[in-house]
Amino acid sequence: MTSEYRYQALENWLVQGIREHRWRLGERLPSIRTLCQERGLSKATVQHALQRLEAQGLVEARPKAGYFVTLPLRDTNKPLIFGRIEPPRPVTVSELFLDIMRRCAAFDLLPDLSVGKLPPGIVSLNRSIGRALRRQRGEHHQYYDAPAGVPCFREQLVSHYAKRGWAARFDQLCVTSGCQHALFLALMACCNRGDIVAIESPGFYGALQLLEQLGLQVVEVPSSIETGIDTDALEEILARWKVRACIVTPAYATPGGALMPLSAKKRLIELANVHDLAIIEDDIYADTALHGTPDPLKAMDQDERVILCSSFSKSLSRDLRLGWVSGGRWHDRILHLKLVTQLATSRYLQEGVAEYMADGSLGSHLRRQRNELRINRDHLIASLQAWPCEVRVSNPLGGLAIWAELAEHVDTLAAYLPALDRGVVITPGPLFSASGQFRNCLRISYAHPWNNARSQALASLPELLLQR
Amino acid sequence: MTSEYRYQALENWLVQGIREHRWRLGERLPSIRTLCQERGLSKATVQHALQRLEAQGLVEARPKAGYFVTLPLRDTNKPLIFGRIEPPRPVTVSELFLDIMRRCAAFDLLPDLSVGKLPPGIVSLNRSIGRALRRQRGEHHQYYDAPAGVPCFREQLVSHYAKRGWAARFDQLCVTSGCQHALFLALMACCNRGDIVAIESPGFYGALQLLEQLGLQVVEVPSSIETGIDTDALEEILARWKVRACIVTPAYATPGGALMPLSAKKRLIELANVHDLAIIEDDIYADTALHGTPDPLKAMDQDERVILCSSFSKSLSRDLRLGWVSGGRWHDRILHLKLVTQLATSRYLQEGVAEYMADGSLGSHLRRQRNELRINRDHLIASLQAWPCEVRVSNPLGGLAIWAELAEHVDTLAAYLPALDRGVVITPGPLFSASGQFRNCLRISYAHPWNNARSQALASLPELLLQR
Repeated sequence: MTSEYRYQALENWLVQGIREHRWRLGERLPSIRTLCQERGLSKATVQHALQRLEAQGLVEARPKAGYFVTLPLRDTNKPLIFGRIEPPRPVTVSELFLDIMRRCAAFDLLPDLSVGKLPPGIVSLNRSIGRALRRQRGEHHQYYDAPAGVPCFREQLVSHYAKRGWAARFDQLCVTSGCQHALFLALMACCNRGDIVAIESPGFYGALQLLEQLGLQVVEVPSSIETGIDTDALEEILARWKVRACIVTPAYATPGGALMPLSAKKRLIELANVHDLAIIEDDIYADTALHGTPDPLKAMDQDERVILCSSFSKSLSRDLRLGWVSGGRWHDRILHLKLVTQLATSRYLQEGVAEYMADGSLGSHLRRQRNELRINRDHLIASLQAWPCEVRVSNPLGGLAIWAELAEHVDTLAAYLPALDRGVVITPGPLFSASGQFRNCLRISYAHPWNNARSQALASLPELLLQR
Repeated sequence: MTSEYRYQALENWLVQGIREHRWRLGERLPSIRTLCQERGLSKATVQHALQRLEAQGLVEARPKAGYFVTLPLRDTNKPLIFGRIEPPRPVTVSELFLDIMRRCAAFDLLPDLSVGKLPPGIVSLNRSIGRALRRQRGEHHQYYDAPAGVPCFREQLVSHYAKRGWAARFDQLCVTSGCQHALFLALMACCNRGDIVAIESPGFYGALQLLEQLGLQVVEVPSSIETGIDTDALEEILARWKVRACIVTPAYATPGGALMPLSAKKRLIELANVHDLAIIEDDIYADTALHGTPDPLKAMDQDERVILCSSFSKSLSRDLRLGWVSGGRWHDRILHLKLVTQLATSRYLQEGVAEYMADGSLGSHLRRQRNELRINRDHLIASLQAWPCEVRVSNPLGGLAIWAELAEHVDTLAAYLPALDRGVVITPGPLFSASGQFRNCLRISYAHPWNNARSQALASLPELLLQR
């Protein structure tokens, strides 16, 4: 038995244990001393195996505490990280893509609205907004609100983030008309025409459209469907090109619900500091967490270079059009851009939502929704596993969608129009790339309650996808 | 009698004739030959006098046609048309100006809110929006509205404009978050960085801020406080520089409520067609008309080059944040920019306002408001006429403010901070210019009901303005 064999055997045993959920995400592995004793190994061998796991991003060393699982493993040999590094370039979004984006910004599979009951959380939200309208007095309607927004609403956001480890101040927040608006202001504030912006790949297509309209260049950073942006790839990119900003979704990134491990978030902050990068943190999915809600990257931002962008569109209502941005060193510029491009946000709306947050209604809504989303996700994954073809599916801990990877020859983009003919909307993988990657992938949403119609629509897809 | 005396005598006689409307704006003066014969003067003397008038901007030589009156003289020696032509330049708005703009976007004189009753028109508006919220069913809140907005609201806008001679179609309209947002989308759609944009001078400072943020150059077009943009000056500018777009407020332009005559609107459209110009029509004040509401420029637009921008902020409520844009040939681009920068507008809000328009509530509100505004305006003008100093005041037929011109040495900008110390907000003239013109002018709002406090604040100003 060589020493190589020993550390490899231990490594395999640990990987197998993680895969079998003997140790789950966030849990501590047995201590080095315990492993030495129970497996009859030297300290050096045990340390070597653990360091190899750490290098693969599967575990994380915490000083004086031990090694913790950061990644739930998949049971295949396929690379976990998608994408490839290509030089920066201007963005051009094709007409077909725009059409797909417009449709899929609504929802996939069945675009028709379900006509069920309004969820209790939304009934109560609408009542809060109605009360705020009835409370209007005097000449308030004659005044524009301050561009930053109503203090009572921003104070509620501060309390909301305090639970996630970020001690914000209300005057670090600016209210926007949704998260896309926040991202737009953030990019306008920290970039100039022609600058290079790094984005996750696969990643959010709305970011691509923004880059196109603002005349910014894109560089795609290979990203994992489970752990998000690959910081090693980012480091390589930063060494080769002058990147101005990086848009990243640490918590449950679209398309597959990736969750960045703590170690990767630390690394990202370090890289940003070294390369003088603006980090635009898209935090919109955080409140869709199915278990605990992770802390935002912004909570680690010592250097005021993280611009946090978010809204209630994914966790509460897309019709609110209410978001926020915390701009770090770019805060004043963002405030000014908000003023110049839109003046203000409705005061009654912010007051209504502030009341909804203050009386605990948002908390109840998120708890109820969490249970529903978990059920929807499990239904969707089970249905996909019943497909009569090769399909590998992400198993996200939050977000609203899974990422399905089909056999390499499958062309999801070619299936878009034939599916549409049958009344089924699919979201092909290439939408999540500036360079047309991921043709054999699909994003599939689980935001909707599961029902027979959705189930049938999903079951009809393999025939369409495999016939070409 | 020296020849010097002769040309001066002719010059004075011509000025007197223009002042007495013997020759009106746009009319031709007697020919050089006629003047020589009838006044017994040499050709050189007549030409000298005419050239002096031209140098003062009172007449204009047109090749092979003669000299035409460009300026209607008032019965004082002051020119009616303000401003001067200067070459295009980038816009830089100073910090002090930004501060003033932020305060004055609310209101001038007394920044404190009055705590009176909510106007009945707003109570009824808020009820309509509340009902729209209560009507929400099913999963509607889970969907973004289409970027263009809800058809029922856009159909109401179509009916609203049909009364003003513009036969719009609902699919020519895109809903925005207010008029400033509409102007922003319009400029982004029809201009590229570095382009030259013509604006009224004096004119809306929000346009200056937009040009600054979008990296556009400004050229100021001298404008009358009574009849708006001077189309002759615009023609001269268009001949000298390649102007991409012109922002104009034909109906009750800020700062003084100017109303463009029909002939000037026709001329503007002709110029736009000849010089391939985009016309951005700011229509936000139209519904504050104290008598009849004029037709929009857009109604004359055969060539799809007028982009109409408006909102309810001046006529109904600034807290609605609901505007619209009709982009002519740039409509698709504007729709796309709306999608990319903000996705959508709240559906419940549009539905509530559509109901408010459909059931006649908006009409009642505008009629009531019209009477109140007329009373406010008359109070304000009477109070200004009681000032113990030279002051000339516009007498607008719509809009929300008058323009007061003080003696030339008065420096309203210097009085801004001293007035603020006393709790009185003034809006100095230079805010309405990219080049710091109009230091002896003030804009004063009459949007507020007249009361003792406002009256006293206004009466306190001459002392501050005249002490320097």
